Amino acid sequence: MSTQAATAAPIFDPLWAEIEAVGRDGGTGGYRRYAWSDADLTLREWFRGCAAARSMDVEEDRNGNLWAWWLPHDWVGDPKGAFVTGSHLDSVPDGGAFDGPLGIVSAFTAVDLVRASGIRPAIPIAVVAFSDEEGARFGVACIGSQLSTGALAPERALGLRGQDGITLAEALIRAGRDPDALGPDHTLADRVGVFVELHVEQGRALDVVDRPLAVASAIWPHGRWEFDFTGEANHAGATRLVDRHDPMLPFASTVHTARAEAVALAAVATFGKVLVSPNGTNAIPSRVRAWLDARAADQPTLEALVDRIATAARSHAGAEGVGLAVHTESVTPIVDFAPEPRARLAAALAHLGEIPVLPTQAGHDAGILSDRVPTAMLFVRNPTGVSHSPAEHADAADCHVGAAALADVMTAWVTTT
Amino acid sequence: MSTQAATAAPIFDPLWAEIEAVGRDGGTGGYRRYAWSDADLTLREWFRGCAAARSMDVEEDRNGNLWAWWLPHDWVGDPKGAFVTGSHLDSVPDGGAFDGPLGIVSAFTAVDLVRASGIRPAIPIAVVAFSDEEGARFGVACIGSQLSTGALAPERALGLRGQDGITLAEALIRAGRDPDALGPDHTLADRVGVFVELHVEQGRALDVVDRPLAVASAIWPHGRWEFDFTGEANHAGATRLVDRHDPMLPFASTVHTARAEAVALAAVATFGKVLVSPNGTNAIPSRVRAWLDARAADQPTLEALVDRIATAARSHAGAEGVGLAVHTESVTPIVDFAPEPRARLAAALAHLGEIPVLPTQAGHDAGILSDRVPTAMLFVRNPTGVSHSPAEHADAADCHVGAAALADVMTAWVTTT
Repeated sequence: MSTQAATAAPIFDPLWAEIEAVGRDGGTGGYRRYAWSDADLTLREWFRGCAAARSMDVEEDRNGNLWAWWLPHDWVGDPKGAFVTGSHLDSVPDGGAFDGPLGIVSAFTAVDLVRASGIRPAIPIAVVAFSDEEGARFGVACIGSQLSTGALAPERALGLRGQDGITLAEALIRAGRDPDALGPDHTLADRVGVFVELHVEQGRALDVVDRPLAVASAIWPHGRWEFDFTGEANHAGATRLVDRHDPMLPFASTVHTARAEAVALAAVATFGKVLVSPNGTNAIPSRVRAWLDARAADQPTLEALVDRIATAARSHAGAEGVGLAVHTESVTPIVDFAPEPRARLAAALAHLGEIPVLPTQAGHDAGILSDRVPTAMLFVRNPTGVSHSPAEHADAADCHVGAAALADVMTAWVTTT
Repeated sequence: MSTQAATAAPIFDPLWAEIEAVGRDGGTGGYRRYAWSDADLTLREWFRGCAAARSMDVEEDRNGNLWAWWLPHDWVGDPKGAFVTGSHLDSVPDGGAFDGPLGIVSAFTAVDLVRASGIRPAIPIAVVAFSDEEGARFGVACIGSQLSTGALAPERALGLRGQDGITLAEALIRAGRDPDALGPDHTLADRVGVFVELHVEQGRALDVVDRPLAVASAIWPHGRWEFDFTGEANHAGATRLVDRHDPMLPFASTVHTARAEAVALAAVATFGKVLVSPNGTNAIPSRVRAWLDARAADQPTLEALVDRIATAARSHAGAEGVGLAVHTESVTPIVDFAPEPRARLAAALAHLGEIPVLPTQAGHDAGILSDRVPTAMLFVRNPTGVSHSPAEHADAADCHVGAAALADVMTAWVTTT
């Protein structure tokens, strides 16, 4: 069965309209939907409303991930081997509308399309919203899925502190949740037969080949490292240049080293977050903390990249009499999506011709879950490739193709037992 | 008459002990004495106490500057042609103990020394504490003295807003002051015969020549410029390097340009304050705002320095497809301290041998006042040269030499009419 994009339009678009204003900054037009913030709680209520409108029971698991269930008519007991689809609701600072929500809107739309076509699933279906995927608030990405798979220890997660000085534990209490509940979800392997995450593409590969949809092959290994340069605060006027230990200089050199080494290794490296102390115009900084985001096609290349940058940074710092400490905040190994679910996706979408197969440089909950359960991803074309920005975009027609494809995959999966 | 350093010790040191803990941060050990904060108000009370202990009447002028008066025994009417000495009580974030308070402690100590030696002044003496010299709270330095000379319009000052969102007008109201009172002090030229500001040196020049004291020749012209680099926010993983418009790269290049051009022109240039948007680890920045503090020995050199840095920055930005706007926040022209008061200081201190004469790269209330009244400055050795930092230091022996010298200058001035 193939549900056509055209039929999706009237079902699909109202879902977008409902959340368009939630957590949107009036100035930038970008979204600030941080985990457990008011915007996040509003979106969680919206998710419950979407589920209720479809008579799907919602369960919030111990880690704050939301599951909306559509069980087969005669199902008894706990769900098992379900077809699970969804993504996340939170955003980076000034993020776009699609990164995360597109996967959830498409999931509910796919449920509508499958129901409208009269399909009666033989196995359970769930729409999921994973908690705190972007890591914008507490500095660690995919907190919800990492807690559930056991990749992140609850005691470490609870102590993570945001810029507002509030820990995850405190944020959970404020949101009426129980911090002591956090921990591995031992039902995961039983309940989830497959997790298919649909996501807006975060590059321009589909635009280049002029196709609306791709299947993911792998997620590049990636990580975050804090570079902490410590110099000596001093008067910006009266301190001779030769007497300075200004951490801004080795930081600046390291920005260029990171770019050059990323070019050399066909990888990517970015310094996107910087905190300067005391950050006064007439004071030489005492400290510059800068966070490196680095990603490469394989683990040895990533390690070589970070080693080269850290080694050069130490040398830059030494030349200015500045101290440097490099802390690893997180490292996510390569994810190769398993061939079997990918093959079943391709088969279900055979009517669309051969679907492009692409790696992605961005981390996803599907990558985290692939440790425990079969996972796959679908990407929807992003014509500009812009992501993590208010300018992020996907055409409505492509979003409809994506939701219809997800419905086709869902149909094939839940009717082929 | 020469008052010896040894006699100053018992008088001098208790004054320090009284304010040692005011506004001091327990973690850094630095001072956070921002204008009109609780710490500032405590220090103002301390100033009034010092004056009361010496039977000096205190007047707070329309701009919040404090004046403690010692009038000649038979003086009738308003003070005229006074010998005024003092400095400021506020600090930069995590500032040292000496920058500002040393001038006030030394002023009261000099009063004690002059009195102890039996001198009866023929002209009025005042100890002054100028309000908000550092500009740490509202971003503009020397607010109190600039308002009094008319260099800063009250309507501009009142609208200045600190990081806490509070304007100067609101801060004044909270401190029980009247914002409408602010404006030029038309009595200044009449009342002040000379303003002598004693200040801890903010470089290491006196240490190099092994002398405890210097007289100021000039204040370098200096200013603040905002460099606003605007790029394109994007995903730090999924965006190809060639597709990026990352403002961090041209900013980093500009940091090095600023240092190189400052070296070339024997000037100083510092990027001490940086704000990154959105400042997320996994987002290429959309914007990097960085503030340049630049100073040079003369105005043409300063202009050449800033021109070269701005021109190079535009080229660095253009190479990355990044926009750049450069805004002048403030420029303070060169101050050449007038020869006459300098000569009188040197004569009063002839018993100390030839006093080094030094320019300073730091702005001071004495520089602002030099527009309206004769001014001079004395610098006390700073053995490390560290300033605007908790590590700022001056030896007690040198402080005693400074206070005694100030007493000698005061004596000579008020007994030679």
